[in-house]
Amino acid sequence: MRYLKNVWYQAGWEAELDGDSLLSRTLLGENIVMFRGKEGAPQAILDRCPHRFAPLSAGRLNDGVVTCGYHGLSFDGEGRCVGNPHGKPGAIRTRSFPIVARNMILWVWMGDPDQADAARIPDCSFIDETPEAARITGTLPTGAHYQLIVDNIMDLSHADYLHPTTLGGMFTGAKTHVSGGNDRLLIEYNAVDCNPAPAFHSIVPPPQKADVRVEVQWFAAGVMILAAGAQPTGTTRDPGRDSFTLHSITPETDGSAHYFYCSTRPFLTDNVEVSASIKAALEKAFVEEDKPMLELQQRQIGDADFWSLNPLLLPIDSAAVQVRRALDKLIDAEARDER
Amino acid sequence: MRYLKNVWYQAGWEAELDGDSLLSRTLLGENIVMFRGKEGAPQAILDRCPHRFAPLSAGRLNDGVVTCGYHGLSFDGEGRCVGNPHGKPGAIRTRSFPIVARNMILWVWMGDPDQADAARIPDCSFIDETPEAARITGTLPTGAHYQLIVDNIMDLSHADYLHPTTLGGMFTGAKTHVSGGNDRLLIEYNAVDCNPAPAFHSIVPPPQKADVRVEVQWFAAGVMILAAGAQPTGTTRDPGRDSFTLHSITPETDGSAHYFYCSTRPFLTDNVEVSASIKAALEKAFVEEDKPMLELQQRQIGDADFWSLNPLLLPIDSAAVQVRRALDKLIDAEARDER
Amino acid sequence: MRYLKNVWYQAGWEAELDGDSLLSRTLLGENIVMFRGKEGAPQAILDRCPHRFAPLSAGRLNDGVVTCGYHGLSFDGEGRCVGNPHGKPGAIRTRSFPIVARNMILWVWMGDPDQADAARIPDCSFIDETPEAARITGTLPTGAHYQLIVDNIMDLSHADYLHPTTLGGMFTGAKTHVSGGNDRLLIEYNAVDCNPAPAFHSIVPPPQKADVRVEVQWFAAGVMILAAGAQPTGTTRDPGRDSFTLHSITPETDGSAHYFYCSTRPFLTDNVEVSASIKAALEKAFVEEDKPMLELQQRQIGDADFWSLNPLLLPIDSAAVQVRRALDKLIDAEARDER
Repeated sequence: MRYLKNVWYQAGWEAELDGDSLLSRTLLGENIVMFRGKEGAPQAILDRCPHRFAPLSAGRLNDGVVTCGYHGLSFDGEGRCVGNPHGKPGAIRTRSFPIVARNMILWVWMGDPDQADAARIPDCSFIDETPEAARITGTLPTGAHYQLIVDNIMDLSHADYLHPTTLGGMFTGAKTHVSGGNDRLLIEYNAVDCNPAPAFHSIVPPPQKADVRVEVQWFAAGVMILAAGAQPTGTTRDPGRDSFTLHSITPETDGSAHYFYCSTRPFLTDNVEVSASIKAALEKAFVEEDKPMLELQQRQIGDADFWSLNPLLLPIDSAAVQVRRALDKLIDAEARDER
Repeated sequence: MRYLKNVWYQAGWEAELDGDSLLSRTLLGENIVMFRGKEGAPQAILDRCPHRFAPLSAGRLNDGVVTCGYHGLSFDGEGRCVGNPHGKPGAIRTRSFPIVARNMILWVWMGDPDQADAARIPDCSFIDETPEAARITGTLPTGAHYQLIVDNIMDLSHADYLHPTTLGGMFTGAKTHVSGGNDRLLIEYNAVDCNPAPAFHSIVPPPQKADVRVEVQWFAAGVMILAAGAQPTGTTRDPGRDSFTLHSITPETDGSAHYFYCSTRPFLTDNVEVSASIKAALEKAFVEEDKPMLELQQRQIGDADFWSLNPLLLPIDSAAVQVRRALDKLIDAEARDER
Repeated sequence: MRYLKNVWYQAGWEAELDGDSLLSRTLLGENIVMFRGKEGAPQAILDRCPHRFAPLSAGRLNDGVVTCGYHGLSFDGEGRCVGNPHGKPGAIRTRSFPIVARNMILWVWMGDPDQADAARIPDCSFIDETPEAARITGTLPTGAHYQLIVDNIMDLSHADYLHPTTLGGMFTGAKTHVSGGNDRLLIEYNAVDCNPAPAFHSIVPPPQKADVRVEVQWFAAGVMILAAGAQPTGTTRDPGRDSFTLHSITPETDGSAHYFYCSTRPFLTDNVEVSASIKAALEKAFVEEDKPMLELQQRQIGDADFWSLNPLLLPIDSAAVQVRRALDKLIDAEARDER
């Protein structure tokens, strides 16, 4: 499987790392283990002892050092062996990965460490800027290639058919505009004087009609930020009322992905019950509607190359197809650079 | 896997299609979805939307039209797109398959549609001609290559060893005769003055001896009709007393098959309790005896070509081997025609 | 997968074969069935009828003869067909394997039968020589390549990290000596004036220190006999007080193995409760500590060649690496002989 390597991927949530935990996760087919170093900073190293290949996550964390549970070799967050009960640590090393905690997210760089530039991390400051009670965070394991999940978000028209009772009903026929290129892309939907999706009924109750604006900003390889706002038809839009949702998709294996999401809102920001009920609705839509569909798609596609199956191209696919082509280009460029 | 394509396969039972249902099944490695068209006739199309490969069976059926649950494209039973909310249906198509409901059976043609000739459907009129109360129908999913199941029926001597307490005891040593060729074959068993199988004890109670006649007619690729009759030794045979059983085997994947059966009898034809008890006995014999043996065979054979394992040939294999050779020839001929 | 063929492997325990049982097991990727012949001697033949490949173990054993449950062919322990209800047995045969019951163990030879020499069976007479009440026997199915399990026993330092509360604590830093070659190897550990492992506390209670001697004798491909003795520091060693444990590992498939063990002790030899408690402790250590670690290693290694992953070599690996190199040489030599 070809993955884009020199890019930041979400590896988890900062809150998953408490002082003692070893967080093991497979990203882009590689097993990594994350933990907090001596000073508390997140660390990520290969979850495989170089001696006999035991996963280090089956060992113990002490004071920022992981000790293998099989023969006692110890490693710090740089991947350096700092304890060898059977000799000198010498030059023993395991691979380490650049990792940054920002906006509550753990970002990992799976490519060339020298190119890891934290300035390239997608800006998710809307998360920190939202009071905790108005933030909804989740992790959804999905048995589908990550690009199918990216397609799903880059083409919101699916909501009209897959989520008609919650999120859909206003995308088909909305005016769309796609811009950007290289490793970023923006798709804007403007649904004017439409029947807003049931999710907006608290803002624009039926039978009132609404002007709805949704935009999705994509950052290679799998990070998307969705902003959405609605107001009664013809009234003035207040961008300060927009809700934001991070959809952050990280490949796990060729046929599975980690789907991290975080949804925030600018109203009722101290109401945890509203948050709980939105979270339940979002996860219900995902678990009962998106996830089965994505996993059925994956089963139909199997190991085949997506393009080799000659997918029918519709106008709604514009952004998703541009993302796929941008990724292909970036991956090809990376392959060339490696040669 | 090489399958015979230009032949009718049983895809299910007509009764499985009510007005609203989408019946999804994998045949010869292809996923198809069956449903009733606007006029009520059965339809079969590829269970895969040409847009993003979602299974159409995860969508909805309305008035003979299937709508994809992912982005709302609609298809009729000819595979034509008859609704596209994102543009014109234009030339959008998915593959359709000839399908015929006859004798309560759904017959599907997986090969070249131009060659689909309903006159070639095996005659199973014994099913309709039997009162409903005297018909027993079932579907048995089996984790074995369909040819192993065909072998099993084309060599009934196995009943003497695998089903000694129900169906066996009289086949080994019976006089057999095999005739036919190309895509049909008949094996006849005549067991003269034998101890009939326990299944015949209601007709010829022990210690009486019986003359038993069983014949199996095979139609390529996997359809077999078994006729059986017994009478006390030396008395006159009345063919009108024969019982008939359809054994219809359709490949699902390389290692699994759909086993459809329908058993009828010419006596006690209004007794549903007798039917229930025969059904229970048949399925018990299959589920506890045939199915495990077939699946163990499959596990031993794995991906190997059957002939490459040099099976020992015995006289009892005559019909089964002729069927395998006939199938090989038909499949080879089909491959030649495609070139 | 390359296996050493011309060598004795443990196929089970003699006690597993009572008069009626058909014992089916996969060894080196081949399915064999074991049973007692007419005179009571163990027999081993391929667990696959040459006719239609049904496993013979799904049939019946009568008077030393196995009858296939599918079509009634019968085979004796030499693999000769001794009953064919459909014709003459003639030259029908299935493969048979040399098998010897010795020291309560069933030893099978999977290679060239002409080279099977019972004199090459590893001497496990310590088993018979121990009273039954002081013998502990078990079989542990393990989802790991057999060489990983051999590595585990040939490097006991792992006990200090994986079994700190039972078997470990004294191996790291003990004086070791490795000797032998070809198809045998001995590693000796001498831990002088050490804190003995908790398992020795009944012999040398804390805070007393001990001199502990452990040696492991390896016999190709996967048989190891471990002898262990401890006495208070500076006192005289009595080899008659040593405990012995057989660790006998037989490949099942490329990723799984049969782990047979038998532990004996020279003290409290009539106390079955002590035996039960030692057995519980040993299996707990294996099932909760070794088995997960071995299976995690296997998962990390997958199908890769062990050496291709460049394992870090430490002094503790000396015996395990010599065993791996000896096996590679023996397997290469066998491949040359076959050409």
